[in-house]
Amino acid sequence: MQHNLDNSAVRDLYAAAGFAGRVGWGERPAVLVIDMANAWADPDEMLGSDLSGVMDSILEVLASARRAELPIFFTTMAYDPELVEIGHVVQAKTPHSRLMIRGSDRVALLPELERQPHEPLIEKPRASAFYGTNLLATLISERVDTVIVVGCSTSGCIRSTCESAFNTNLRAIVPREAVGDRSPTAHASGLFDIDARFADVVDLTDVISHLDTLTARA
Amino acid sequence: MQHNLDNSAVRDLYAAAGFAGRVGWGERPAVLVIDMANAWADPDEMLGSDLSGVMDSILEVLASARRAELPIFFTTMAYDPELVEIGHVVQAKTPHSRLMIRGSDRVALLPELERQPHEPLIEKPRASAFYGTNLLATLISERVDTVIVVGCSTSGCIRSTCESAFNTNLRAIVPREAVGDRSPTAHASGLFDIDARFADVVDLTDVISHLDTLTARA
Amino acid sequence: MQHNLDNSAVRDLYAAAGFAGRVGWGERPAVLVIDMANAWADPDEMLGSDLSGVMDSILEVLASARRAELPIFFTTMAYDPELVEIGHVVQAKTPHSRLMIRGSDRVALLPELERQPHEPLIEKPRASAFYGTNLLATLISERVDTVIVVGCSTSGCIRSTCESAFNTNLRAIVPREAVGDRSPTAHASGLFDIDARFADVVDLTDVISHLDTLTARA
Amino acid sequence: MQHNLDNSAVRDLYAAAGFAGRVGWGERPAVLVIDMANAWADPDEMLGSDLSGVMDSILEVLASARRAELPIFFTTMAYDPELVEIGHVVQAKTPHSRLMIRGSDRVALLPELERQPHEPLIEKPRASAFYGTNLLATLISERVDTVIVVGCSTSGCIRSTCESAFNTNLRAIVPREAVGDRSPTAHASGLFDIDARFADVVDLTDVISHLDTLTARA
Repeated sequence: MQHNLDNSAVRDLYAAAGFAGRVGWGERPAVLVIDMANAWADPDEMLGSDLSGVMDSILEVLASARRAELPIFFTTMAYDPELVEIGHVVQAKTPHSRLMIRGSDRVALLPELERQPHEPLIEKPRASAFYGTNLLATLISERVDTVIVVGCSTSGCIRSTCESAFNTNLRAIVPREAVGDRSPTAHASGLFDIDARFADVVDLTDVISHLDTLTARA
Repeated sequence: MQHNLDNSAVRDLYAAAGFAGRVGWGERPAVLVIDMANAWADPDEMLGSDLSGVMDSILEVLASARRAELPIFFTTMAYDPELVEIGHVVQAKTPHSRLMIRGSDRVALLPELERQPHEPLIEKPRASAFYGTNLLATLISERVDTVIVVGCSTSGCIRSTCESAFNTNLRAIVPREAVGDRSPTAHASGLFDIDARFADVVDLTDVISHLDTLTARA
Repeated sequence: MQHNLDNSAVRDLYAAAGFAGRVGWGERPAVLVIDMANAWADPDEMLGSDLSGVMDSILEVLASARRAELPIFFTTMAYDPELVEIGHVVQAKTPHSRLMIRGSDRVALLPELERQPHEPLIEKPRASAFYGTNLLATLISERVDTVIVVGCSTSGCIRSTCESAFNTNLRAIVPREAVGDRSPTAHASGLFDIDARFADVVDLTDVISHLDTLTARA
Repeated sequence: MQHNLDNSAVRDLYAAAGFAGRVGWGERPAVLVIDMANAWADPDEMLGSDLSGVMDSILEVLASARRAELPIFFTTMAYDPELVEIGHVVQAKTPHSRLMIRGSDRVALLPELERQPHEPLIEKPRASAFYGTNLLATLISERVDTVIVVGCSTSGCIRSTCESAFNTNLRAIVPREAVGDRSPTAHASGLFDIDARFADVVDLTDVISHLDTLTARA
């Protein structure tokens, strides 16, 4: 009873049902770096796990994207200290949300990302980077038609962000080495589902190559 | 490498990470019947599978909900015959969407649901019943604070609809026997994920008992 | 105490306050034809007025847009016959909404528009063509960055649609002769406000010239 | 050529067209205080005007609402210092938006509002308090069905916020003395339009009386 990318029977079932086509690259990509803050990247945190390998891959994507002068956006989660902004249902189902206080170290981006002033940091209230934020309008302004989604967690915020991109006909590309999850099972399930329904899951090298082509063209 | 409700190690990991709390019942439930049309319920269809057991459970939920005089909403998917409304990304990733032509038999609700005139049929363009529709405003008008989500597919439209409900602080309740999926693996994974992140997955009898209490009170 | 395009004192006040800049043309326009159905265009209807001059201007825009092979979308309003989909607040504030029954003659597009099969007809539940519909995702799919907004009513659905376009950083252009309103006062006020806040209000001839340039280029 | 609340001919035209019904009070109100920051309330600012009378009325509403223990939300506008989050269209049409830098004095709430820690401050990117924010989900969580909208500007952010509330079937109530606008003409036009289309415009004393009833009941 498995559900992952190595399970060819499930893959065939999905292809026969009209899933898992390719969205491919558009003309104008942006990078979305999801939730690379202490709350997720510190293994001692409630939601945390060791994401050091993922971080190395993200840094490769960022270096290439900055050379190609692409728009880059970072997200974290943040609520008011009194937790009014979360809401009762979200608090009840996901008690970890109570830890995400605006301005705390826990939700601060990891410094090795070296976020630049023109790369906005978006405080999102839910899993998807698009829900309750102004991200979509900013992407439209920049004529972005493709989002490279990296960060964590594969089965949570990465999946939800890819679904929102898909819903609005933005092409989403997920370099598999640049997303992580506290559970290896959830990571594999998540990648399978994302590739079947919402985004192209590809090798990191394919993303870097494509971005380098854009740099060369510019 | 499993990811399902019987896997206690994964359950413990999620609970320790602050997932899988209980949302519980609110004061005013509604029923959302997702995509119980031929395209999904006819095993000969590209997306189809045998949902006869699921249908029996849905009919039980509907009978109880109608006795309690709760709002009930049905969904199907439907696009224009020229497929302009789908969009290129959605067509490319999920080619089955090209089959969902407005007005065709394929997207017609199954007659045994006996939809009543005051139970709206919503044509949704994406997996979530809330995306690109007027559903949320109608639920707010009816003072609904809880949605009972039934139909198909567990890992697709059921999951997405539960995520949207959660995002807006609506309590979502999923009676496990009343949702189905073409893949048993995806069904189990989907139920686990839904219960961990978005909604309470419960036994059908619990839902029926609760609705009968509401009827008795009225 | 006037509030219209001819009132230079008010114009100066707005310009000094940082309003009424120009958005200009983008690379890829689409046409949104708002609510040109009997409910609005038949003077005997509750909401109706004589829009024959407006219709002539719309037909000019459509002819040019079709020559340039631009995406074209039509809207109307439509609710279920039991009016559940409207909601109590919308019904209470705007009782005319109770007349907009899906499938009725009242909400059918005027035949002289000669809508083509690849030009979708969108049933919108509110004033803005973007609220509760899938329009934005379809525009993104078509790489549209500019919407030419025509139809009625200037102070209602035209204004709201322009605000939604502005919110998402789509350029909105309103050819003044191609929008109408039952009240001349509301028409003038509406055009002033739209031009100050959301969209460029321009002469019909400017729109036709621009579309003809696109045709010549193609 | 006037368009205001004293113009009975226009009022009659709107009533005959099925506008301007009453939404009335629901069971659970909240207060939305819109943009009472220096950028709008300091007459020396580009967007500013003298709002001291409006502020007195707002303080009355706040005092009553706090006695009744109602949810209260404040908004301001705020963008990143590099202005990436605004977008090209919004910058072009409304150049004043370039002044609204997150964390600056200009967008700080006026201290006499005495915002309490459990009264969230929402940074909104557009005129409506609901666009690109998490406000709706928070209101749903609190079972709010009525929003009392105060602040500025009547013809801009107040109108847009009322339209969003109406769209989602929330009852919106505007105490006329507690909203202001830099232009008296736009204020009068705005109140007329809001009352015709989206919200009940009422006297301040009516709002205070209603809130005092809620306090007495509690």
